[in-house]
Amino acid sequence: MKKNILIIPGDGIGQEVTTWGKKVLEKIGENYGHEFSFDEAIMGHTAIEATGNPLPDETLAKAKASDAILFGAIGHIKYDNDPSAKVRPEQGLLKIRKELGLYANLRPILLFDELLDASSLKPEILQGTDILFFRELTGDVYFGEKNRNEDNTFASDLMNYHRYEVERIARKAYDAARTRNKRLCSVDKANVLETSRLWREVVQEIAKEYPDVETEHMFIDNAAMQLVKNPKKFDVVLTANLFGDILTDEASQIAGSMGMLASASVGDGTGFFEPIHGSAHDIAGQNKANPLASILSAALMLDISFGLQEEAKAVTNAVAQTLKAGWRTGDIANANTEASKVLGTQEMGEKVLE
Amino acid sequence: MKKNILIIPGDGIGQEVTTWGKKVLEKIGENYGHEFSFDEAIMGHTAIEATGNPLPDETLAKAKASDAILFGAIGHIKYDNDPSAKVRPEQGLLKIRKELGLYANLRPILLFDELLDASSLKPEILQGTDILFFRELTGDVYFGEKNRNEDNTFASDLMNYHRYEVERIARKAYDAARTRNKRLCSVDKANVLETSRLWREVVQEIAKEYPDVETEHMFIDNAAMQLVKNPKKFDVVLTANLFGDILTDEASQIAGSMGMLASASVGDGTGFFEPIHGSAHDIAGQNKANPLASILSAALMLDISFGLQEEAKAVTNAVAQTLKAGWRTGDIANANTEASKVLGTQEMGEKVLE
Ligand SMILES: CC(C)[C@H](C(=O)O)[C@@H](O)C(=O)O
Ligand SMILES: CC(C)[C@H](C(=O)O)[C@@H](O)C(=O)O
Repeated sequence: MKKNILIIPGDGIGQEVTTWGKKVLEKIGENYGHEFSFDEAIMGHTAIEATGNPLPDETLAKAKASDAILFGAIGHIKYDNDPSAKVRPEQGLLKIRKELGLYANLRPILLFDELLDASSLKPEILQGTDILFFRELTGDVYFGEKNRNEDNTFASDLMNYHRYEVERIARKAYDAARTRNKRLCSVDKANVLETSRLWREVVQEIAKEYPDVETEHMFIDNAAMQLVKNPKKFDVVLTANLFGDILTDEASQIAGSMGMLASASVGDGTGFFEPIHGSAHDIAGQNKANPLASILSAALMLDISFGLQEEAKAVTNAVAQTLKAGWRTGDIANANTEASKVLGTQEMGEKVLE
Repeated sequence: MKKNILIIPGDGIGQEVTTWGKKVLEKIGENYGHEFSFDEAIMGHTAIEATGNPLPDETLAKAKASDAILFGAIGHIKYDNDPSAKVRPEQGLLKIRKELGLYANLRPILLFDELLDASSLKPEILQGTDILFFRELTGDVYFGEKNRNEDNTFASDLMNYHRYEVERIARKAYDAARTRNKRLCSVDKANVLETSRLWREVVQEIAKEYPDVETEHMFIDNAAMQLVKNPKKFDVVLTANLFGDILTDEASQIAGSMGMLASASVGDGTGFFEPIHGSAHDIAGQNKANPLASILSAALMLDISFGLQEEAKAVTNAVAQTLKAGWRTGDIANANTEASKVLGTQEMGEKVLE
């Protein structure tokens, strides 16, 4: 198989972690006889510094021309402290999602048994949890019209959904539920929001096409609670953009750390694969970041964009074995971890490669 | 002291639990020589059934005339399954919040040591947690213009804030932080939302008036994660309406159960006190609901609306002693609880009264 893969490291620890996602793809290419060729492009703060634009035309053109994209992370503390900045790193990420039509963001909550005690949740609460989030990614209050009045006394963002936007992600989520435990929980705030009421109506309609899947509708406040109380009850979770952003970060604690979670964004064209963690500037360049989310993102790419299930499994197994052998990065280490078993980014990456 | 208290039981378990909040207020009145007089009014599904209106004029008039309101819960599964219903129970609650100018919703996360192991979180993660949420309650996407196009292919809700709305709740939260551990965390999504950027700007300004309080700004996705990972790090948390709704329900798992959490809504006029739990129709009328959140709401009323700190303390102590004696309702019982110690709503209420 011949594939062009675009690497967009982005900002902060994005640089370090994608190095390892890429190395793992190279290794898989060698071992299984695939021709993976790589190109690189800039985005976010890094791109603003270089060109003034968080998503340069060249990056977008390369992205559209590639077969799949491995992305790192985005954001910089400078902009977080300056809410009035007009050009912001995150605009790059939002724009590429929109331009590539990446409307479905899949976030599997993969629980490695070895990390059961890395979580703040009790092991007996976690054990057996297996959730696949479908987060809508190109609509909602993220992309609705934004306003600020002249004297800065008022600001607004339009939350909105079109029926077709709900339909297409709902179908994807139901299709996935069919191949899993046949339960789907759709999360909204239909007791307050009109957008959520449309969302719920559409999901109720699509549900009829999938009589073999059990559907539940849950309010976002309740879902945020149930996810901590009893994560096992969820199978596929379907959410709008904003609610999905919140719930999946929360769910990262099930997997022990944000540093473990990968995501796949798919839709009309090229697939986009990234860790769910952020740019973490406080630890950037210190060889401290956990590269496993980027490596697992590479596995999702092999599986979802290239249909290489065996190769994907090989990567996930390599991660599992590394954890089984006791190796940890700082974020997933705990009081019981021997100090000599705690690795930096590079050393952890090398262990997985072995 | 002479006070008129309005009881609005609302829907579902609201009826049962407010009975006990009221009995506790009566008892405090007797013991401490206060003249508390009570009136009752309807709201929500109950009011729709009786009058067609989720907030009848009579209820609103009584509310405005009273010194404080003890509310139960709102909502009915019938409307949850019918997203197209035009008249809905929740409209009653939203309208009374708006009409009474209840812009600040205080949700203390009170952790009783006896319930440390009722939580899905590890006791060592929980121990020492003490959070006070300030949730804005009369703005945000809850009250912005809602639209639905004619052929039901599009729906929207306007998320918006005025500067003065952010200022007044920020000041309340900072004032409270001063009397506590002097840390305030303001939660927003300023990397995406214009509303959040205004929010952050205003909080940054108000922060200057409180140089003795340490301010942190956190994105909502990160906050949802940190709350599970390390709840101890929070002192006062300041949030917009929607984000506060989500975070406080999530935080209920710190206290072991939603059935333990009380809230106070204050602002321009009469204070409004309610459990944060919902109407839970599945257990309504079965003597299963936990009355402690309503009883603790009564304590908040004594403290915040009437300035009766000693009386409030007496109520909280009675709850603590009941828990210390081993009594539990189903929601806060666990595998180690003797069956004979698990009580119904009424029996739990009586134990606290004793
Ligand atoms: C960086 C930010 C714009 C982004 C989002 O909110 O979508 C991130 O939190 C994510 O979840 O991918
Ligand atoms: C019932 C609902 C409208 C309400 C809200 O979202 O504010 C509830 O969840 C709450 O938190 O008080």
